[in-house]
Amino acid sequence: MKVIIVGGVAGGATAAARIRRLDEKAEITVFERSGYVSYANCGLPYYIGGIIEDSKELTLQTPESFLERFQIKMKVQHEVTAIHPERKIVSVKNLENGQEFEETYDKLLLSPGAVPTKPRLSGMELPQVFTLRTVEDTLRIREYIDENQPKSAVLAGGGFIGLELVENLRELGMDVTIVQQPEQLMSPFDPDMAAFIHGTVRKHGVKLALGHTVEGFVQKEEGIDVLLEDEAPLRADMVILAIGVTPDTHLAAEAGIELGIRGSIAVNDRMETSIPDIYAAGDAVQIKNCVTGRDALVSLAGPANKQGRIAADNICGGDSHYQGSLGSSVIKVFDLTAAVTGINMKTAEQEGIDADYVILSPMSHAGYYPGGKVMTMKVIFEKKTYRLLGAQIVGYEGVDKRIDVIAAAIHAGMKASDLKDLDLAYAPPYSSAKDPVNMAGFMIDNIEEGRLHQFHMEDIEKISQDERVIRLDIRTKMEYAGGHVDGFVNIPVDELRDHLDEISQSRPVYVMCQSGLRSYIACRILSGYGYECYNFAGGYRLYSTIKQ
Amino acid sequence: MKVIIVGGVAGGATAAARIRRLDEKAEITVFERSGYVSYANCGLPYYIGGIIEDSKELTLQTPESFLERFQIKMKVQHEVTAIHPERKIVSVKNLENGQEFEETYDKLLLSPGAVPTKPRLSGMELPQVFTLRTVEDTLRIREYIDENQPKSAVLAGGGFIGLELVENLRELGMDVTIVQQPEQLMSPFDPDMAAFIHGTVRKHGVKLALGHTVEGFVQKEEGIDVLLEDEAPLRADMVILAIGVTPDTHLAAEAGIELGIRGSIAVNDRMETSIPDIYAAGDAVQIKNCVTGRDALVSLAGPANKQGRIAADNICGGDSHYQGSLGSSVIKVFDLTAAVTGINMKTAEQEGIDADYVILSPMSHAGYYPGGKVMTMKVIFEKKTYRLLGAQIVGYEGVDKRIDVIAAAIHAGMKASDLKDLDLAYAPPYSSAKDPVNMAGFMIDNIEEGRLHQFHMEDIEKISQDERVIRLDIRTKMEYAGGHVDGFVNIPVDELRDHLDEISQSRPVYVMCQSGLRSYIACRILSGYGYECYNFAGGYRLYSTIKQ
Ligand SMILES: Cc1cc2nc3c(=O)[nH]c(=O)nc-3n(C[C@H](O)[C@H](O)[C@H](O)COP(=O)(O)OP(=O)(O)OC[C@H]3O[C@@H](n4cnc5c(N)ncnc54)[C@H](O)[C@@H]3O)c2cc1C
Ligand SMILES: Cc1cc2nc3c(=O)[nH]c(=O)nc-3n(C[C@H](O)[C@H](O)[C@H](O)COP(=O)(O)OP(=O)(O)OC[C@H]3O[C@@H](n4cnc5c(N)ncnc54)[C@H](O)[C@@H]3O)c2cc1C
Ligand SMILES: CC(C)(COP(=O)(O)OP(=O)(O)OC[C@H]1O[C@@H](n2cnc3c(N)ncnc32)[C@H](O)[C@@H]1OP(=O)(O)O)[C@@H](O)C(=O)NCCC(=O)NCCS
Ligand SMILES: CC(C)(COP(=O)(O)OP(=O)(O)OC[C@H]1O[C@@H](n2cnc3c(N)ncnc32)[C@H](O)[C@@H]1OP(=O)(O)O)[C@@H](O)C(=O)NCCC(=O)NCCS
Repeated sequence: MKVIIVGGVAGGATAAARIRRLDEKAEITVFERSGYVSYANCGLPYYIGGIIEDSKELTLQTPESFLERFQIKMKVQHEVTAIHPERKIVSVKNLENGQEFEETYDKLLLSPGAVPTKPRLSGMELPQVFTLRTVEDTLRIREYIDENQPKSAVLAGGGFIGLELVENLRELGMDVTIVQQPEQLMSPFDPDMAAFIHGTVRKHGVKLALGHTVEGFVQKEEGIDVLLEDEAPLRADMVILAIGVTPDTHLAAEAGIELGIRGSIAVNDRMETSIPDIYAAGDAVQIKNCVTGRDALVSLAGPANKQGRIAADNICGGDSHYQGSLGSSVIKVFDLTAAVTGINMKTAEQEGIDADYVILSPMSHAGYYPGGKVMTMKVIFEKKTYRLLGAQIVGYEGVDKRIDVIAAAIHAGMKASDLKDLDLAYAPPYSSAKDPVNMAGFMIDNIEEGRLHQFHMEDIEKISQDERVIRLDIRTKMEYAGGHVDGFVNIPVDELRDHLDEISQSRPVYVMCQSGLRSYIACRILSGYGYECYNFAGGYRLYSTIKQ
Repeated sequence: MKVIIVGGVAGGATAAARIRRLDEKAEITVFERSGYVSYANCGLPYYIGGIIEDSKELTLQTPESFLERFQIKMKVQHEVTAIHPERKIVSVKNLENGQEFEETYDKLLLSPGAVPTKPRLSGMELPQVFTLRTVEDTLRIREYIDENQPKSAVLAGGGFIGLELVENLRELGMDVTIVQQPEQLMSPFDPDMAAFIHGTVRKHGVKLALGHTVEGFVQKEEGIDVLLEDEAPLRADMVILAIGVTPDTHLAAEAGIELGIRGSIAVNDRMETSIPDIYAAGDAVQIKNCVTGRDALVSLAGPANKQGRIAADNICGGDSHYQGSLGSSVIKVFDLTAAVTGINMKTAEQEGIDADYVILSPMSHAGYYPGGKVMTMKVIFEKKTYRLLGAQIVGYEGVDKRIDVIAAAIHAGMKASDLKDLDLAYAPPYSSAKDPVNMAGFMIDNIEEGRLHQFHMEDIEKISQDERVIRLDIRTKMEYAGGHVDGFVNIPVDELRDHLDEISQSRPVYVMCQSGLRSYIACRILSGYGYECYNFAGGYRLYSTIKQ
């Protein structure tokens, strides 16, 4: 069997190694356009910032090591320029010497990845304007920085790659501004949770220019101007564009392979394209979102690696299936960790899924053991079925743990309230006897059982103006004095029972505390006396973070 | 409704608070024998070592705060001395003034916990011999240390509490020896995994006297002698016994409540005892092991808290069910983290479950991002069904995360090989594109598909002496020179294909490398040429740790 693979990184390199392990006799050739295979895309920003010191660290394997261990021919600087499915041939161009040749295949795997989205803007070609995808891109940026010692940068795009770059440029002491059209960074998060990320980014001296469309770049004597719609230009010494990625599928398209959303390659769950013996994996393919069941693009390394392995299995006559993705991801934003799995409220709404959520602020580990830090957790579920739909967590230690536990629970089709039953490991340095994940389960259980009724940020304004309702802030007098929502009257929870006569029984009561826990207790007390109560999910802590 | 609760800590205090949240009108009284309620048992060792500095940190709530917030009467220094179910009355003794009285109840919850197991040995009453369960025990030990500045300690028992104490006594600069009858510390782990714990404990200057039975204690002029069977006594300035706990159930027994294993209280999954209106929770009760379905004792705070909440629900007319425990637990042993969930191989064997396992040594996060550390992971599954049974992990960062993900997977009834499909969050500081949990899934998938055949530590001796087999160590020459298993011949994996003619086709090949990964690749190569191959699970790394 002769296998040709296009792209020698996450999906392609993994598939190549796996094919060898399944078939010692297969003839395996990987064509890679860039000069490197098996590189750690995800590490690239950290090389720019100097966290990863040696550029050798960026490649997990080399063509030589692949040949030695796996008898795989890794042809770097070789671009596959055309696929001829009817002849089972690919055309290849050796980019070093310009020679072109053809290669036959029995099985072809496409893992060409994606390319940074580049809008057609004036000045895109300027030497100070960069994008980041490959090792070459990385070395180019590093070199530019080393030679020109830029003092300022504009980052167009505040997604995963953008924010990782921001952190690393700050690490180098640069003045950094993020500009983007969306009003919030990190679109996988809902705006409320993104507010914590905004806070951290600002705390670390990054300027945010959100809601602005970049219109082009103009070379100036000192640096370049980033032109904005309706706003004065931003001046900077360099610009990196990280506004998203686009599946690199022109090859597939030209070969007549069926395409999916946004020009991606359509595959079935065996990673087979519409043309026999051609498989595809990674950022280039369309996959299923496990929660919505919809077609989706997920540009992440875990899925690419898994898909590569599955494609390899099937290429070798096996029968492996990709189960779709939850889009689980995590990012370090300075000292903050932000992680997400499943769908957010925005997506639920778009998909017409009637969803609700809880927000809690548990400690990463037992409060009495030193070093614990508060995290903010949002867990989303379907209203009628209590199906677990997604979660977003921002915090410090232990954020990645809880997102992975919830990802496993979603994968397994667990009910959101069943999170309360998970038997998780506890010792003071690691967790609490009621782990944050359990705690979310308790809260959702309370909603399911009709013991907890909530109101959310979007209700605040209406409620604040509604004369028929009672608004209570049940924190201590000192907390209340430190800041509160207008119209909310202060009665500390521990004094509530003594003040019942001041609270009219005939009106619904909206209760707020700092995190939602004490106001829940207050609601339970009031419910015991016949009141109709609503608890503010996330508490004043969330409110003030969003308003900041 | 009048509720009486015996024991005001994990199970009892949680239930009390929950009952109040469910029923504002209930009259709730908690009797607590010790002087403290709502204390952090799990933090006690860290107060002794000075990690937790303020003893106030050890109690999460006080009788005053319970009264204020929850209108719950917390009677400390009150021991319930008898239950009279026929009259629905408990007898109580006020330990401060010796007064005895009776209290009626509609519902009674027992959460009396467990007491440190105290064998009948001579010298148990000596002032230098301690056990640890309550705040009082803790203050007593601290005071003894402050006043007497002991230089050495013997810890009888190397389980969770024992090891936490050892670490904290070392923290105080003491010379510590662990003595116990079992040959391995931390019985929830299999001996191979415990070997890593032994290594760490020894590295931190702790002496191990394993396989020794303590026969008694004798006061000497300087310190005390710990008498051992068949061995010279150990001399120390103080002794702490932590050889296990025994359910504190004499009250229940005397009241005629049905008992379970080891004198525990038998309850159904609603936490109801055999006597109507009497519930029980926590360390005192017998629960179901989720994996084996057998009755079990699990003395952990997570289960106690969950059970307390469930008992409260049912006391208030709800219908909540405890789903049993996986015994998930984690411990910090100096810089090491060791965690476990589900059952180990020892238990599988005892239960007649035909189980197998994989062992892997993944990095906590991507190798190219600084700070990653190797962990050792053992994942156990049922041979025929590939049902996920348990896992043990030792390492540093990220151990607790992987155990919790696997605990969730076991809880959800996932197949072990399905771990490969979990969509976990990846960025370089947190994980690898193939997360360790996925990696375990890949390995088990390979076993299921007949692509990976293993041999284990217990097979080594037989194989080493079997003249009919071929034994290969496929590490580099340098690694091999640094230490290897006798009888294993060195052919580096990358040279294997050139040496096939030296390997007889007619004999099974047993292959070893450092972790198991390269030897797996070697096995796949050899299989491709028709060899019958076996891979040593865990590699020389495991072998040498066990043999150390
Ligand atoms: C800066 C950065 C940071 C990231 N951080 C994370 C992270 O923290 N976590 C995470 O999960 N994911 C992260 N990702 C995404 C992750 O790297 C990708 O999802 C993954 O690499 C996709 O794998 P792939 O095989 O589809 O594509 P790639 O890994 O991009 O490999 C595709 C390769 O194919 C080559 N190629 C394309 N067309 C041809 C052709 N015609 N002929 C020959 N070769 C061709 C390309 O040169 C490229 O090297 C990051 C990506 C970047 C760029
Ligand atoms: C040192 C130590 C460290 C630990 N570390 C961990 C850990 O890291 N992780 C973990 O999960 N678990 C840990 N545990 C175990 C955990 O603390 C227990 O599982 C949990 O506290 C059990 O809760 P419980 O309510 O059953 O019993 P307890 O919390 O022990 O409470 C029972 C209370 O009942 C009182 N009582 C008993 N009989 C009577 C009576 N007749 N009248 C009145 N009062 C009575 C007792 O005085 C006691 O205070 C640790 C325990 C100890 C001692
Ligand atoms: C480096 C690279 C070629 C490795 O591919 P790989 O050989 O499949 O992966 P690994 O070295 O992690 O090995 C995994 C294999 O070893 C097996 N394995 C791992 N530990 C093992 C052990 N202790 N015992 C036995 N087998 C083991 C796994 O089962 C798996 O084999 P399988 O796929 O046949 O089931 C590829 O992942 C790559 O190029 N990565 C870099 C690019 C990238 O991912 N970029 C994006 C993220 S930065
Ligand atoms: C301190 C103690 C009394 C707390 O009991 P508790 O009130 O049940 O627990 P918490 O304060 O954590 O609050 C949990 C409750 O708040 C709710 N909650 C938590 N965060 C919330 C939020 N942001 N919004 C709304 N509700 C929230 C939970 O749903 C849960 O309520 P429920 O049980 O009615 O569903 C009890 O756990 C205790 O005594 N612990 C110490 C003893 C111990 O556990 N020792 C062993 C381990 S060291």
